[in-house]
Amino acid sequence: MIDTKFFDNNGPFSLAEICKICEAELVDESKAGEKILDISNMDKAGSGEICFFYDRKAKEKASSIKASACITTKDLVSLLPEGVIALTTENPKLAFLKLNMAMYKEKTPKAYVSEKASIHPTAKIGENCYIGDFAVIGENVTIGNNCRIEPHASIAANCEIGNNCRIGDGAYVSYCKMGNDCYIYSGARIGCDGFGFMFLAGKHVRIPQIGRVIIGDDVEIGANACIDRGALDDTKIGSGTRIDNMVQIAHNDVIGNGCIVVAQTGVAGSVTFGDYVVCGGQVGIADHLKIGSGAQIASQSGVMREVDAGAVVMGSPAVPFKEFMRQVATIQKLTKK
Amino acid sequence: MIDTKFFDNNGPFSLAEICKICEAELVDESKAGEKILDISNMDKAGSGEICFFYDRKAKEKASSIKASACITTKDLVSLLPEGVIALTTENPKLAFLKLNMAMYKEKTPKAYVSEKASIHPTAKIGENCYIGDFAVIGENVTIGNNCRIEPHASIAANCEIGNNCRIGDGAYVSYCKMGNDCYIYSGARIGCDGFGFMFLAGKHVRIPQIGRVIIGDDVEIGANACIDRGALDDTKIGSGTRIDNMVQIAHNDVIGNGCIVVAQTGVAGSVTFGDYVVCGGQVGIADHLKIGSGAQIASQSGVMREVDAGAVVMGSPAVPFKEFMRQVATIQKLTKK
Amino acid sequence: MIDTKFFDNNGPFSLAEICKICEAELVDESKAGEKILDISNMDKAGSGEICFFYDRKAKEKASSIKASACITTKDLVSLLPEGVIALTTENPKLAFLKLNMAMYKEKTPKAYVSEKASIHPTAKIGENCYIGDFAVIGENVTIGNNCRIEPHASIAANCEIGNNCRIGDGAYVSYCKMGNDCYIYSGARIGCDGFGFMFLAGKHVRIPQIGRVIIGDDVEIGANACIDRGALDDTKIGSGTRIDNMVQIAHNDVIGNGCIVVAQTGVAGSVTFGDYVVCGGQVGIADHLKIGSGAQIASQSGVMREVDAGAVVMGSPAVPFKEFMRQVATIQKLTKK
Repeated sequence: MIDTKFFDNNGPFSLAEICKICEAELVDESKAGEKILDISNMDKAGSGEICFFYDRKAKEKASSIKASACITTKDLVSLLPEGVIALTTENPKLAFLKLNMAMYKEKTPKAYVSEKASIHPTAKIGENCYIGDFAVIGENVTIGNNCRIEPHASIAANCEIGNNCRIGDGAYVSYCKMGNDCYIYSGARIGCDGFGFMFLAGKHVRIPQIGRVIIGDDVEIGANACIDRGALDDTKIGSGTRIDNMVQIAHNDVIGNGCIVVAQTGVAGSVTFGDYVVCGGQVGIADHLKIGSGAQIASQSGVMREVDAGAVVMGSPAVPFKEFMRQVATIQKLTKK
Repeated sequence: MIDTKFFDNNGPFSLAEICKICEAELVDESKAGEKILDISNMDKAGSGEICFFYDRKAKEKASSIKASACITTKDLVSLLPEGVIALTTENPKLAFLKLNMAMYKEKTPKAYVSEKASIHPTAKIGENCYIGDFAVIGENVTIGNNCRIEPHASIAANCEIGNNCRIGDGAYVSYCKMGNDCYIYSGARIGCDGFGFMFLAGKHVRIPQIGRVIIGDDVEIGANACIDRGALDDTKIGSGTRIDNMVQIAHNDVIGNGCIVVAQTGVAGSVTFGDYVVCGGQVGIADHLKIGSGAQIASQSGVMREVDAGAVVMGSPAVPFKEFMRQVATIQKLTKK
Repeated sequence: MIDTKFFDNNGPFSLAEICKICEAELVDESKAGEKILDISNMDKAGSGEICFFYDRKAKEKASSIKASACITTKDLVSLLPEGVIALTTENPKLAFLKLNMAMYKEKTPKAYVSEKASIHPTAKIGENCYIGDFAVIGENVTIGNNCRIEPHASIAANCEIGNNCRIGDGAYVSYCKMGNDCYIYSGARIGCDGFGFMFLAGKHVRIPQIGRVIIGDDVEIGANACIDRGALDDTKIGSGTRIDNMVQIAHNDVIGNGCIVVAQTGVAGSVTFGDYVVCGGQVGIADHLKIGSGAQIASQSGVMREVDAGAVVMGSPAVPFKEFMRQVATIQKLTKK
């Protein structure tokens, strides 16, 4: 059962309502009036709850479902135990997403500007924004409408933030232009100096970092992630891209649209990603490389060469996925001898 | 010499007192009245100080000890130089811990609620708590007795914190129930959204994350570590577990009791750890895996399969430790040819 | 074009002035009066801008420069297209650094102590300091002259900070003595407890961490990096060392002077670095090892043994660079068979 202390439940919903929300069909129309209180997993759902079954591999779990109802496909519906009310749809995962969104719409804080925030008089803040305690909004900052600036967040001087953005607790945003619908998680650091030095007379002399961070629309940047600003050109994060916790994006990186970058990955400077690149966790990518659109990089890979569009690579140094698997098999075979 | 600017020294202690604290015995009882001012390492301790010798491999270092006294075992005592007062005990490491704790009990701040903190009127705060400047305690938060909420920490709405907990400077706690005696380090991020999306019409649509983070008793979570909340089930951290700096724990992970997870390790979603798992630094663990109780995972391993209870694994992909060592030897041998 | 919203441009400069700043020579002295408005990259620079050409490999790019002027070497000057005003110097990279510094001197905030900061009455703060909103300066803290303590930063009790230091937004500094000219980035955590426990009766008992963090002069510590304090001895960071984002430095580590440690590297406890060690990103170094001066450790390496001064190592476990390359070649060859 979802904890309604944290998440407001907009239910109960009748199965008829759920059919509408999920574009699903009841196998037995007489059940349309049954009330559903909550969503849950197959193995935890009980009376009054609905669960979702979409993977034949889980058929054993499915056979002992205790939920009142289950959304599944026409293919799998026969695997449900008797007594479980069946709903069918083409894509039960999507049904789950839709019902989840309908039942647990996220609470957004009301428009409010804390007296305990520090807002520079020159900052321009749009309509219907929430600005939490101890947030700092610097000189000449522009913030769009419906933004949520959480406690302890900092938006440094001259930054531009679009509409419907959320800046998490303690996040730091500097030297940045950000589009609409972005979500910067708690503790993320945007726009710090890139790591660039010139070695002169025994000293690593900092090269002034005079580029910015340009973030598109609908971008997420995870908790405690770091996006350094450009050295001369800008660091760019394309629209629709999702960056997970503790990812490092270095100066001058250009990340395309719709990319996924999983936690703790590090991208060295001046790397270019195409669109829809998927990068697993703890990947390292050497500087100045090009990663083609649609490329997939497995977790913990160390990428030392360009990756072609659509390629799937793995290993450190990274090689095509199949080659990596053969390498692993080869080593295992030779070791057993 | 320990810097008493930072750490209050409760000494000096006589050797008689030290014998009591450490359950140790003086080889020469006539020295019971000697005063010891400080603890130190074998190679740095000087007059008035005591050190600890427990590893025969360090016998050379031991032979040039300059400390006034040394705690060692009966086995090793003959290796001490003349003039060093010897104390013996079965476990000198434990003696070190005990004397350290006795001599340098950590300063805990007095009960105090800063006027500069922001505490929601509905929050319930136990007795004898310290709440630092610019801390934010949200709506309906419950905090137990003797807690220490450091400056800039945030406890978001509806969280429950047990007794004797310490929430570090700038840490962020949300969607969380936490037991007693927990220590969340500075900058840790608890309860942020898990990294879960469904790809629909060219967009990565966020799946609402409606689980919580449930933390047991006596848990430590390191600086800048991230523990995401569950998607539907909860993310759980078992009692007595120690999580180091910058570790990533993803949504729905269930970490057992008494586990150790060293810095920069990343655990993907829906992984289950048994109890007393030891996980080295920079380990990556793929999603949905089970790691059995007492398993040990060497640093930098990439775990792609279940790990049996008590198993010791290493490598990326991780294999049993001995096999990894043979793999390394095989490659070295083949390379030399 | 550099965004002058974020970076003040001190130009325009005449080419004569630029020759002085960069110790460069005009090939055609008659151009000395031409005005330069900005610096840029070879492929982006346009009219009124100057760029830098120093790598013969980029000769194709050089051939299509649209900038008004270009600084290059005598060797390469013939590769510039007609119409681009040529300046020559021995080291165009250095010329870039000098002109960058002259044209875009970083804005430093004016001396200012925010009324919204919390400064303990016993703290001593030098002349000409900037202390931002919601910063916390603890009991008996000493801060030198010309320091910049950004919003939400915390300097905990008894710390000593030298002159000209910058402590970034939300950074946390505790149990620390820091020299002059240091830059601690946003979200860095200095002086948290080292990760040290003794296993007693089923519990991981914390060993009190009673050492400090001693930081030399001219040190940079990156965003969200963690430097734990020592257990008994101090953790030390030598002068001139540059530590990148999200690096983990554990208790008792002693990092030498002039070292470079790239993002997401983790150094386990009691490791000693000589001077001018260069450590790539995502490197892991096991505890108690010595890394000799001038050693270079490639990204993603896992160092399990001492590294000699001047050695270059790679791989996990790390081996000499050439051996690693041969290992990789060996595996590839055997896999192809």
